[in-house]
Amino acid sequence: MKANRPLLALFLEIQMLDPIPRAGYVLRGVADPESVAEHTMHVLFLVWTLGLQSEGVDVARAVEIALVHDLAELRIGDLPRTSSHYFPPGAKKAAEAAAMADVLAPLPERARRLYDEYQEGTTPEARLVKACDKLQLMLKVAVYERWGTGALAEFWDNPDNFPDGGFPAVRELFEELRSRRNAENGQN
Amino acid sequence: MKANRPLLALFLEIQMLDPIPRAGYVLRGVADPESVAEHTMHVLFLVWTLGLQSEGVDVARAVEIALVHDLAELRIGDLPRTSSHYFPPGAKKAAEAAAMADVLAPLPERARRLYDEYQEGTTPEARLVKACDKLQLMLKVAVYERWGTGALAEFWDNPDNFPDGGFPAVRELFEELRSRRNAENGQN
Amino acid sequence: MKANRPLLALFLEIQMLDPIPRAGYVLRGVADPESVAEHTMHVLFLVWTLGLQSEGVDVARAVEIALVHDLAELRIGDLPRTSSHYFPPGAKKAAEAAAMADVLAPLPERARRLYDEYQEGTTPEARLVKACDKLQLMLKVAVYERWGTGALAEFWDNPDNFPDGGFPAVRELFEELRSRRNAENGQN
Amino acid sequence: MKANRPLLALFLEIQMLDPIPRAGYVLRGVADPESVAEHTMHVLFLVWTLGLQSEGVDVARAVEIALVHDLAELRIGDLPRTSSHYFPPGAKKAAEAAAMADVLAPLPERARRLYDEYQEGTTPEARLVKACDKLQLMLKVAVYERWGTGALAEFWDNPDNFPDGGFPAVRELFEELRSRRNAENGQN
Amino acid sequence: MKANRPLLALFLEIQMLDPIPRAGYVLRGVADPESVAEHTMHVLFLVWTLGLQSEGVDVARAVEIALVHDLAELRIGDLPRTSSHYFPPGAKKAAEAAAMADVLAPLPERARRLYDEYQEGTTPEARLVKACDKLQLMLKVAVYERWGTGALAEFWDNPDNFPDGGFPAVRELFEELRSRRNAENGQN
Amino acid sequence: MKANRPLLALFLEIQMLDPIPRAGYVLRGVADPESVAEHTMHVLFLVWTLGLQSEGVDVARAVEIALVHDLAELRIGDLPRTSSHYFPPGAKKAAEAAAMADVLAPLPERARRLYDEYQEGTTPEARLVKACDKLQLMLKVAVYERWGTGALAEFWDNPDNFPDGGFPAVRELFEELRSRRNAENGQN
Repeated sequence: MKANRPLLALFLEIQMLDPIPRAGYVLRGVADPESVAEHTMHVLFLVWTLGLQSEGVDVARAVEIALVHDLAELRIGDLPRTSSHYFPPGAKKAAEAAAMADVLAPLPERARRLYDEYQEGTTPEARLVKACDKLQLMLKVAVYERWGTGALAEFWDNPDNFPDGGFPAVRELFEELRSRRNAENGQN
Repeated sequence: MKANRPLLALFLEIQMLDPIPRAGYVLRGVADPESVAEHTMHVLFLVWTLGLQSEGVDVARAVEIALVHDLAELRIGDLPRTSSHYFPPGAKKAAEAAAMADVLAPLPERARRLYDEYQEGTTPEARLVKACDKLQLMLKVAVYERWGTGALAEFWDNPDNFPDGGFPAVRELFEELRSRRNAENGQN
Repeated sequence: MKANRPLLALFLEIQMLDPIPRAGYVLRGVADPESVAEHTMHVLFLVWTLGLQSEGVDVARAVEIALVHDLAELRIGDLPRTSSHYFPPGAKKAAEAAAMADVLAPLPERARRLYDEYQEGTTPEARLVKACDKLQLMLKVAVYERWGTGALAEFWDNPDNFPDGGFPAVRELFEELRSRRNAENGQN
Repeated sequence: MKANRPLLALFLEIQMLDPIPRAGYVLRGVADPESVAEHTMHVLFLVWTLGLQSEGVDVARAVEIALVHDLAELRIGDLPRTSSHYFPPGAKKAAEAAAMADVLAPLPERARRLYDEYQEGTTPEARLVKACDKLQLMLKVAVYERWGTGALAEFWDNPDNFPDGGFPAVRELFEELRSRRNAENGQN
Repeated sequence: MKANRPLLALFLEIQMLDPIPRAGYVLRGVADPESVAEHTMHVLFLVWTLGLQSEGVDVARAVEIALVHDLAELRIGDLPRTSSHYFPPGAKKAAEAAAMADVLAPLPERARRLYDEYQEGTTPEARLVKACDKLQLMLKVAVYERWGTGALAEFWDNPDNFPDGGFPAVRELFEELRSRRNAENGQN
Repeated sequence: MKANRPLLALFLEIQMLDPIPRAGYVLRGVADPESVAEHTMHVLFLVWTLGLQSEGVDVARAVEIALVHDLAELRIGDLPRTSSHYFPPGAKKAAEAAAMADVLAPLPERARRLYDEYQEGTTPEARLVKACDKLQLMLKVAVYERWGTGALAEFWDNPDNFPDGGFPAVRELFEELRSRRNAENGQN
């Protein structure tokens, strides 16, 4: 049975994604903000649903990428976006890759390659996960705004939100979400 | 863009899995108990990892089943186990199926069939998800016991925990987990 | 002393009403939502206060009904309103009655009869408790709106809110509450 | 409708009992401690149940006393026990009476007299509420100890716990609770 | 080593400032309100920063006063402002001084004199701490309003907010804060 | 008044230390873990108290160092200790210094120098703050263990805990704390 120890240790460590809150919400005063585990579940659901509607995407692999995409936070934490101004270029990315290699050590080599693919971001599967990662953020922002919690308006002004070249289905959903949000605010 | 509305509504509703705490932990005094979204993420990870190690399992489909397996709780809630003594046999299962049909209505028919497969529990994929659903429960119980939160000892005495015929890998992990837990308690 | 065991077990179980949050608030994003124990305390206060002002009501018995009216949730949980679409008609009511019989088993027969009276809803006492149950909901909704937590506007549009035939004192308080709420929103 | 305003204001203020945590638990590290509203609900249940079993007690009036017994905390807060060393003798009691007079101003004179009766503590009804107030404290302490939260052992050594002359039913329940607790601790 | 016991007991007791929430926020529905420890840290920062800019202030001593100014709450709790209507004049102040003498007993006499200085409020250092205590309150109110939590508008109407004679730097910061807040509300 | 804007922005940003939980507690399951603001307050108190007892320490400057020592976390977050395995040597320290320069920009140059002094750690004042930073950690660990929250035993085995050359008063307090903790555990 001892052969299972590294795998069991991994499964136990993964549970620690629950108490890690997403830093962007913490710093904007969201009450009881989303955990990294919750974020991961929601990205998975988007990747699966939208992958099935997108041509030329290997949905099964995209789902696998989504499953691992945030696991480095177990060792490094969820750093706020401002942190990237202070670390040297590439330092955070390299730290994440190194942490991921340790976290995923009990799994076959294939698992680490999924993360490399995500960081490189060139395959359709990696790009779909990145687009859904962002869409999920805006869905949660919309939910928090309805609930009345957090100072989140700035997220809607992000010029990086779904520029040309992303997945049209994701972009359209974002546009629909934004127009609903603006309509609700206008009515109030 | 209006074609997206049912899908967008589904994506927003799914976010409500975050505030729903798992009833078994609520009633045993766990501080800040796991949400249904967190549970789902962890089951997905187990299904993926252990599915890759198991012969004769279509891992991609098992992951899809895990993704939908608890969505009915959006409409019905996470009922405590004792509730099953008070509803007529099959009533809860039927209610879950009906709720699932409504929740998943914006998705292709295939999504609902995944849930039927889960409830029937006869395919290897459905059985793997059920086994991982239980293993994840015991992993989280072990974590909470280390954290010192909740009155959870009774979970270890459940005779339904991994009887013969389950996945050997899952059963072995559970045995390893239980022996570690007993060793830790003995030392203290 | 052993004769006390069932009673002591009941007293301990009743404490579990504290961690059970009210489902309607959970699903609408209220931060740290009211527990079933808190709801019960507030309904009791309304029943007592308004019962003293109402002719033809046995206040003492109405208070007793209020004390037991939600105890079935210890065994069944606080199901969200949407759940009633998915269970067969009467299933939830029957489950509550069965759960209540078990919860109240250590008490004299009289306690169960109070719950039957509440479910039938024909006596003035039972109707007063039902009216106060609803009034308390709207009071808490008004409080949460002032606090800025939760997406609760839909509660004000419920056509079941205090139609003709209810207790005039309760209905008047609700009207006053609604007009205050609308005035506050208009000013903002 | 304006005649309702003071009553409506009272009903809204009473809801503030939910966010007030019980100070004794706060200072001993209980996670998410009981609110004053929850405490009140539980005392009411004990008074009702045990009052029905006690001869010579007007249960309906005892329940009314329990309903008001802690309302002064809306204006004064729930002071920790140590505070009584620092205020002049009687100051806290006088402040509570004055606060209660203000809180209950919209109700008939009778309501204030219930509180006076509680403070004097000479009638069987007032003494039953005081005994149940203490019994509920120990029930919750026992629950928190099972849940593993808070440093609460000192409560069991309180020499004021149920000396002679209290209600025998209350004292027996406390003895049973304490012996169960000690047995559980011995086993572990 | 035993000579350290009173000091160690003091250091441990001071940690209890974390779970004590500030009463003014609790009663206005702020989600997860500021603790007394957090408040103290923020007042210290203001006193230090603004003291360095103010002539005729011994900044080091002002910082020391800020460090002790709320420690009596360890024994008395954080009483809501309404409590002062119900205690005899001076009772709360006397209780605080007595509690402070006990809390600070393991420290040199000098520590207690700092608190006396704060209560008398005549030295520039004591007045700076009092002004920063109030400024910090309004900073936190502004933060909570942006976050959307709590019913806090009344704080802006307090006529005691920074009348003539206070520290000009503090008053100017408050005016700037208020005009920003009003501008933000007008835009929405 | 516009001259105050950078200072006001700093004061508002500092309030964000409240929602940032200390990562070491988050990952070990502490319920409602200490915030960075709370930690800072407690370190200040230790530095002040123990500095007054230590010869050759400029207490006022040590207190100032403590006040700024963790402000970089506003921009970088509170990284878990494991993160240091994955960043290149010195990267985190450099990032903290850069973040600190930005956070403290509205203050006189002197404020940044205090942080440099802390990082270099050669003056008695900087070394006292570092020793108190660690002592406060162990005090809070002891408190959490009494409260029954978190899996914290490993902190007591840290070989870096107060080796030779530290402040004798700090080391003695730590030894006293550890022997009390061990005695309590032995009794249980």
